[in-house]
Amino acid sequence: MERNYASRMENMRTSEIREILKVTQRKELISFAGGLPAPELFPVEEMKIVSKKVLEESGSQALQYTTTEGFEPLRLQIANRMNEKSGTKLGLEEIQIVSGSQQALDMTGKLFLDEDDVVVCEKPTYLGAINAFKAYCCKFIEVESDEEGMDIIALEKILKSNGKIKLIYVIPDFQNPTGKSWSIERRKDFIEIVNKYEVPVIEDNPYGEVTFRNEIMPLLKAFDTKELVITLGTFSKILCPGMRIGWIAAAKDIIQKYILIKQSSDLHTSNISQREISKYMELYDLDEHIEIIKKVYKRRRDLAVETMKTEFPDFMRYTIPEGGLFTWVEGPETMDSGKVLKKCLENGVAFVPGHSFFPNGGGHNTFRLNYSNATDCQLVEGFKRLAKVLKEYDD
Amino acid sequence: MERNYASRMENMRTSEIREILKVTQRKELISFAGGLPAPELFPVEEMKIVSKKVLEESGSQALQYTTTEGFEPLRLQIANRMNEKSGTKLGLEEIQIVSGSQQALDMTGKLFLDEDDVVVCEKPTYLGAINAFKAYCCKFIEVESDEEGMDIIALEKILKSNGKIKLIYVIPDFQNPTGKSWSIERRKDFIEIVNKYEVPVIEDNPYGEVTFRNEIMPLLKAFDTKELVITLGTFSKILCPGMRIGWIAAAKDIIQKYILIKQSSDLHTSNISQREISKYMELYDLDEHIEIIKKVYKRRRDLAVETMKTEFPDFMRYTIPEGGLFTWVEGPETMDSGKVLKKCLENGVAFVPGHSFFPNGGGHNTFRLNYSNATDCQLVEGFKRLAKVLKEYDD
Repeated sequence: MERNYASRMENMRTSEIREILKVTQRKELISFAGGLPAPELFPVEEMKIVSKKVLEESGSQALQYTTTEGFEPLRLQIANRMNEKSGTKLGLEEIQIVSGSQQALDMTGKLFLDEDDVVVCEKPTYLGAINAFKAYCCKFIEVESDEEGMDIIALEKILKSNGKIKLIYVIPDFQNPTGKSWSIERRKDFIEIVNKYEVPVIEDNPYGEVTFRNEIMPLLKAFDTKELVITLGTFSKILCPGMRIGWIAAAKDIIQKYILIKQSSDLHTSNISQREISKYMELYDLDEHIEIIKKVYKRRRDLAVETMKTEFPDFMRYTIPEGGLFTWVEGPETMDSGKVLKKCLENGVAFVPGHSFFPNGGGHNTFRLNYSNATDCQLVEGFKRLAKVLKEYDD
Repeated sequence: MERNYASRMENMRTSEIREILKVTQRKELISFAGGLPAPELFPVEEMKIVSKKVLEESGSQALQYTTTEGFEPLRLQIANRMNEKSGTKLGLEEIQIVSGSQQALDMTGKLFLDEDDVVVCEKPTYLGAINAFKAYCCKFIEVESDEEGMDIIALEKILKSNGKIKLIYVIPDFQNPTGKSWSIERRKDFIEIVNKYEVPVIEDNPYGEVTFRNEIMPLLKAFDTKELVITLGTFSKILCPGMRIGWIAAAKDIIQKYILIKQSSDLHTSNISQREISKYMELYDLDEHIEIIKKVYKRRRDLAVETMKTEFPDFMRYTIPEGGLFTWVEGPETMDSGKVLKKCLENGVAFVPGHSFFPNGGGHNTFRLNYSNATDCQLVEGFKRLAKVLKEYDD
């Protein structure tokens, strides 16, 4: 039967990553396609104790409905943690708990975007954000970046000339897909321009704490004097993604609007999971846990970079990320990463072709590679397999 | 600062229930305002064993990302359970797990509704559905019901004359807010009309299993020969709401579309919670648990009805629900339930004024009363307090 869906459904197609991930279920394949954290680092033993304690101490409350904004102690823990690490000055009422930061992206689209409104984003940008915003039938304007971050002159030109811009979406720390970060100077310059044009900014920050440097960079939110920055956070990469607990940090009046959206979207995020993560932070040292993650991912980053250095043909360029989960590879302009992927799958290695990360098309010579979800041996072997295909590439 | 939100935000206001619930945090107040299940019946001890087992058997998988459609064993358990109890013939690929059925309502709006599309619904209907659909800027046409269910002649007249109808939304079992149910005959007649006009039907079924009769009624989905019915289910009222686990049962091609929506909305529902509910059903007898719930709620329904019978003034009418969590009260046409509520709050009892359940306004002489979340003593005392206010009511 022919179905009569909403017109927005024309913008929504299956994520290419999802399709690739289906193929990568095959055991012999080494996959750099997903964005999965290393499961061997999840604190399973600790979570056993945590879940027992939550049920013992507050079982019937934890299994009941709760408030839309989220479990108050968790919201406070998040605010305090951000203030301590990232230079913000957030209070309880500036935090809304959400079901993973993907939900925050969807709620943001719902809150801000009418049809044909414009979202300004980095080029390339996170696929999940593109899909979330596209559901609200917006347009995208992409801004190039250099080694310091988003090109501020280009940004100002766009803000000056386009009246339909509703949001600027950025990932200043260890971006997905490129692995690049913004300098402090660039963050300040960015906020200066944003203040001038008073456009809301979505600062998506899943990776900021997964840094291989000595310190965490201050958030854009830390420089936000006009309450324009909405920062999205998540426990997915620093603890575990399976519980789907993330948050939105924004001015009180914006959070009040997000609460309205959240209420009609799913009433509230899992009460028991919120209490479990709160209890985990009470009983254990999350920072200590993140140190372990950073150590493992840094080693894997080193192995990946080393293998790219020695094995990749000279015409390939790649990011050396200083944190996060991804490196980004660019071939010669004529290279088709879709064709490379096909060859790679035959050779037992997978990645995500980069063009999905360009909302307006392009990027056919680019790849995203994830290094957090493979063992050291798999990493080296997988990058070698990829190098072999690249060396033999002929278009 | 003035913010520039999406135009849909003009349709979204704080739920009146939410505001009332804030007031009802006061301890001395007896509240019939929420729709909360009885927390003393939650299987806390069982969930301790369940969560331990899930973490022991599959800890690192349970804490990892999972598929958008949901945990396969749980989807199968749900399909089998529905087939066994409600006359459906569903398979694995016809079930999508969602974060509570509120999310299914939101996803349904997103999937089907363009601005100014029409949703046909019962008069009155569930507030959460009104809010979820309103976010997509639709209109509502309400259809009256009699003791057997929705007025089929009125329904056909509407379907015949309006080309913008995208969905019919109904709760045939123990409706929220009225507590009323549809007869089998009416269900069949309804499907006949729906088949004729080929309009998708959302059958919201949170309460069907919480029946005080001897048997569960067959779902509309059981009579659905043209794959038009989309049935929403949830564990919130038969197990616990705090985990936010619900589901959508629909034709495979519709589920494929819901998967696209779900993916951009929040990637997937909590992996660990899905596994916990699946494990609970494996280790324990959910039916046995529901028997306990039914017994307690039936006793409370009896107490509520008895007290209304003996204490309410003659000009009040009310539903005697044969299942579910709510009774529905109507006063004389001139009565203002908002004024009654104000007096009631002074007298230590709360409820929800009915007009929120009428998407196009009206119903100012109606009330929704929840009987699942008060002890027996509170129930009788609360209904007496309400009766006292009603007796003294003077407009």
